[in-house]
Amino acid sequence: MVKKYRKGYVAERELLHKLYEKGYAVIRAPKSGRLNLPCPDLIAIKNGKTLSIECKSRKNGFQISKDQLDELKEWERRSESKVLIGWKRSYNGWIFIPFDLVLKNKGNVGNKFADENGFKLDKL
Amino acid sequence: MVKKYRKGYVAERELLHKLYEKGYAVIRAPKSGRLNLPCPDLIAIKNGKTLSIECKSRKNGFQISKDQLDELKEWERRSESKVLIGWKRSYNGWIFIPFDLVLKNKGNVGNKFADENGFKLDKL
Repeated sequence: MVKKYRKGYVAERELLHKLYEKGYAVIRAPKSGRLNLPCPDLIAIKNGKTLSIECKSRKNGFQISKDQLDELKEWERRSESKVLIGWKRSYNGWIFIPFDLVLKNKGNVGNKFADENGFKLDKL
Repeated sequence: MVKKYRKGYVAERELLHKLYEKGYAVIRAPKSGRLNLPCPDLIAIKNGKTLSIECKSRKNGFQISKDQLDELKEWERRSESKVLIGWKRSYNGWIFIPFDLVLKNKGNVGNKFADENGFKLDKL
């Protein structure tokens, strides 16, 4: 569990810096003290455009839980920002999938689904 | 120092919840692990409008350091969001002062300045 947490933190930090280099203002959610309010892992803002990114660092596909989907839906509803699932695939870099597509797919994200629906960092 | 930190944290948490009740999506910056990137204390987003709030919980007036002013300027430049200084005054609730006015005033915020240039939570 600690190892998973650590891996996720390293990936998130890496993405934060990449977005900063691309000119975004960036903020990450605290790992503790989220105060039970819905909130994605990272927010990146540029020219008034806001991206909300939930980060996953997994070797293989994954499923986002119903609870987390609900949280992200609530965040999207309130913020009206662009919500993305950011997946760091081992040896394959980051891919970003629009949240509404992940939602339609019931939270399931696999390699084929990501390749068909996602885009790379340079398109952000 | 610990007491001051605690007081600031309690005030920030209070504001976060007030903004959430007003329909904002809210995120607070972590107290540790800010990764040396400029970032205000709170971000609140509603209907695509983003507020960036640096929180101060002080009995009397205060001065924002040159370093912190520079950080907030950089954040404002990148995000093009509305940056505010949120001051929790003892017994007098929150008042919000536009960052550009605080900047013009060289970071100095006193009661008179805040009353003349700030607005209350119900105007957010």
